[in-house]
Amino acid sequence: MILLILASLFSGCFGQSWPNIILFLVDDLGHGDLGYTGHPTTSSPNVDWMARNGQILTQFYSGSAVCTPSRAALLTGRYPPRSGMYPQVLYPFNIGGLPQTEVTIPELLKERGYSTALAGKWHLGVGEGGKHLPLNHGFDKYFGIPYSQDMCPFLDCYEGEACDNPSPWAQSTHCPLYQDDQIIEQPIHFPSITPKMADWSKQFVIDRVEEQIPFFLMYSFHHVHFPQFSSSMFRNTSLRGSFGDSVSEMDWAVGELLATLQELGTLDDTLIIFTSDNGPRLRQQGANQAGDAGLFKCGKATTWEGGQRVPGILHWPAKIAPRVNPALSSFLDILPTLISFLDGNTSSLNDILLDGYDLTGNIIYKDPSPRQEFLYISQNREKSDSGIDALRLKNFKAHFRTQGNEHSVSENDPDCGPGPASDHNPPLLYNLEADPAERFELSADPKYKEVLAEMINVKERLEEQMEWAESQMEGTDSNVEPCCNPECHPKPSCCTCH
Amino acid sequence: MILLILASLFSGCFGQSWPNIILFLVDDLGHGDLGYTGHPTTSSPNVDWMARNGQILTQFYSGSAVCTPSRAALLTGRYPPRSGMYPQVLYPFNIGGLPQTEVTIPELLKERGYSTALAGKWHLGVGEGGKHLPLNHGFDKYFGIPYSQDMCPFLDCYEGEACDNPSPWAQSTHCPLYQDDQIIEQPIHFPSITPKMADWSKQFVIDRVEEQIPFFLMYSFHHVHFPQFSSSMFRNTSLRGSFGDSVSEMDWAVGELLATLQELGTLDDTLIIFTSDNGPRLRQQGANQAGDAGLFKCGKATTWEGGQRVPGILHWPAKIAPRVNPALSSFLDILPTLISFLDGNTSSLNDILLDGYDLTGNIIYKDPSPRQEFLYISQNREKSDSGIDALRLKNFKAHFRTQGNEHSVSENDPDCGPGPASDHNPPLLYNLEADPAERFELSADPKYKEVLAEMINVKERLEEQMEWAESQMEGTDSNVEPCCNPECHPKPSCCTCH
Repeated sequence: MILLILASLFSGCFGQSWPNIILFLVDDLGHGDLGYTGHPTTSSPNVDWMARNGQILTQFYSGSAVCTPSRAALLTGRYPPRSGMYPQVLYPFNIGGLPQTEVTIPELLKERGYSTALAGKWHLGVGEGGKHLPLNHGFDKYFGIPYSQDMCPFLDCYEGEACDNPSPWAQSTHCPLYQDDQIIEQPIHFPSITPKMADWSKQFVIDRVEEQIPFFLMYSFHHVHFPQFSSSMFRNTSLRGSFGDSVSEMDWAVGELLATLQELGTLDDTLIIFTSDNGPRLRQQGANQAGDAGLFKCGKATTWEGGQRVPGILHWPAKIAPRVNPALSSFLDILPTLISFLDGNTSSLNDILLDGYDLTGNIIYKDPSPRQEFLYISQNREKSDSGIDALRLKNFKAHFRTQGNEHSVSENDPDCGPGPASDHNPPLLYNLEADPAERFELSADPKYKEVLAEMINVKERLEEQMEWAESQMEGTDSNVEPCCNPECHPKPSCCTCH
Repeated sequence: MILLILASLFSGCFGQSWPNIILFLVDDLGHGDLGYTGHPTTSSPNVDWMARNGQILTQFYSGSAVCTPSRAALLTGRYPPRSGMYPQVLYPFNIGGLPQTEVTIPELLKERGYSTALAGKWHLGVGEGGKHLPLNHGFDKYFGIPYSQDMCPFLDCYEGEACDNPSPWAQSTHCPLYQDDQIIEQPIHFPSITPKMADWSKQFVIDRVEEQIPFFLMYSFHHVHFPQFSSSMFRNTSLRGSFGDSVSEMDWAVGELLATLQELGTLDDTLIIFTSDNGPRLRQQGANQAGDAGLFKCGKATTWEGGQRVPGILHWPAKIAPRVNPALSSFLDILPTLISFLDGNTSSLNDILLDGYDLTGNIIYKDPSPRQEFLYISQNREKSDSGIDALRLKNFKAHFRTQGNEHSVSENDPDCGPGPASDHNPPLLYNLEADPAERFELSADPKYKEVLAEMINVKERLEEQMEWAESQMEGTDSNVEPCCNPECHPKPSCCTCH
């Protein structure tokens, strides 16, 4: 406790020696869905501004190609199997969640006197009595829906306008809006949620700056996940339909936070990280609900590049020079790099094995990145079928198993849509720096024989080293679904509060 | 003549009331091949700088999906059939070229007292005695190869290193370097050509500024066309291999011109246009020789978006505010818009019908673009099979005929590679603003019945209005191939000068 107070005093009194930190995480935003990544009809001026004035990570990978495991990797610096966040994702009726044995970024920052808050989507579990909710994993404050908005009956995507298709989740409780560990609105009113969430986040920032306490805000958008929604301020304002409106509202909220930091005089001393949890859903009802991976192959829920190559921006004028940084980097590296930006003290991690690298030298001093490899692990993997689907090693990528997915259907590429898994022996080999679109398969070229052999060896070694904890996805109980009126009946309709 | 002198005096004495103009035209550069358009491993800092500080045209179309017709459209403001620039492209042994009856941008600028120069690739004809060369079409000065570098025996792509594959043009004369209408080097030495061409261009700019004469420089890169080459300064400097090295050298030359303008104090008063003549070759020997269309479908020589959606940047700080402009625009619009930027006087065009629109109101004042439609005409069309392959009308595109091409092979998309033409009735329909990747085909949806009917009507009307001049591509004579020593024998080997 004394240490905490000292840390707090130190960072407060001696003027931001530790940065404020904002982590913007967008849901299902594809690499191609922003202005700065080349989309011709998307408007994202605030994100583009951060990109211009920040460091753009162009070979940056999410922790998984789907939501729950990707977020677990982000907050723990560990591949999802280690925390049991497999297969697939958590649902509102799942008993499990991120194990308490995992140490998260907000927990490490709290130890150092940071005030921590999560706005938006959690998706690492609810569980009995809300035992897996954000306040039990290092966040002081929470405001949002703890899972995807397509996992509850979504009613109103726009003011006076229903969502485009009927919910397949009619048997579930309505989407709940949590403040801390209490439900304050159920069902949530989507057209007004973003302005509320932006205000809540701004107030959190303003209060902390006034108190001179360093803060960590994770602003985890429900945008741009299907079904897309927005406030009337953004409805029908984009050239891309609902999807574009959703990007625009996301971008607006980013701008609100940037403006607040600017007004408070702390923009230069705030480290802002901007990214997406995984690649885009390439197909929903129509183009106006679909994302785009840019030049990358396939999208969400696949281990092709479109599934895990995500936008990455670091904005911190006081320390990070604007540039385009093509070094290999990933969600896993955020935790160790943040700790290194602060005091570098990892003792409270005890013997927890991290998969992330400290990228400080690369980001700040342009040293070569210590990350040489990255593992793509399909969300379909079970413990009984554990393994690595693809391995990136330096500039090469080897696919040992590929499988398309319903989220990734593309008329233009038959590999992306649903179908059985294909095992590849020899693996499919690509040079991702020359060929980021995975078009030129190299395994048959004798020139790459040694590369291939090395990749197979490294893959086998890393598979042996990977520990698969017990899955958290198995137990279900409809009683754990969020209900603002827990004793009411008949459920789920009685779970209604305003 | 008096008018010309007055115009010259006016723009000279009254300090740049008319802007200097530089038109950078890159060869076969795909929409996805630059940093600012989202390529993860391409380095193009100077082009990206122009994009950040200029106006980015995101729905900008080249005049054709291949070189010769596209360049004809660019310089004349007319669809290629009107000038007979069909089918395919001109070869060194073709008798034909751009007809003298066509009025070009440099001719219109010369009338107004501009000094005009072309550096680099021409590709609008050589002909007997060089009758179709740039000096006969409005350029005061020329320095470059008048066609593609894969149309002559290319020897040395890098210092001490042969090009990656043997030339299929061994029977042709060596690639000639022209200065004005004289060959000064044959064969040309590719590893040194870019620094020479940049110096020549810089000197042209410096001299004109000293003389206080407004200038038009068209810098028409031989980069990034196959076979890629670069000077030793750029060899093996990129993550993308030869292709990336070629982009880097192109970008460097852009930077040299920008720096020269800056030093001369005329950067703000110079209108710079940056674009590419058509989409990328998606497949050559390997990934390190292939371009990328970003999120767009297919590439060069197809009427899918990847064939004709090209990067477009306007940089003119004195007049054009930096922004992203998604208005529909094309090569055809450059001529009328330039004239409008000057005096708006089109009388010297007599009764020549232009297909371009004056975009001044849109570019400067954000008015809606007058361009509502755009015609995609395949390079395979003959007069006997005249027609429009695809029509863009507002946000929609209808494909009436599609065909892949060997330049556009993509393992990931079977529509892109070579095969017979497919006629579509009803046409394939896409909403390009919601779906720029052409993934969601709409013709079967009754909601679009009226749109479809309108597009068919407009297509038929525009087809009737299109005049197909006699083709310039038919006559051939190996004696017209450039030879620095015209009377020598045996040809082609004797055509060698240093």
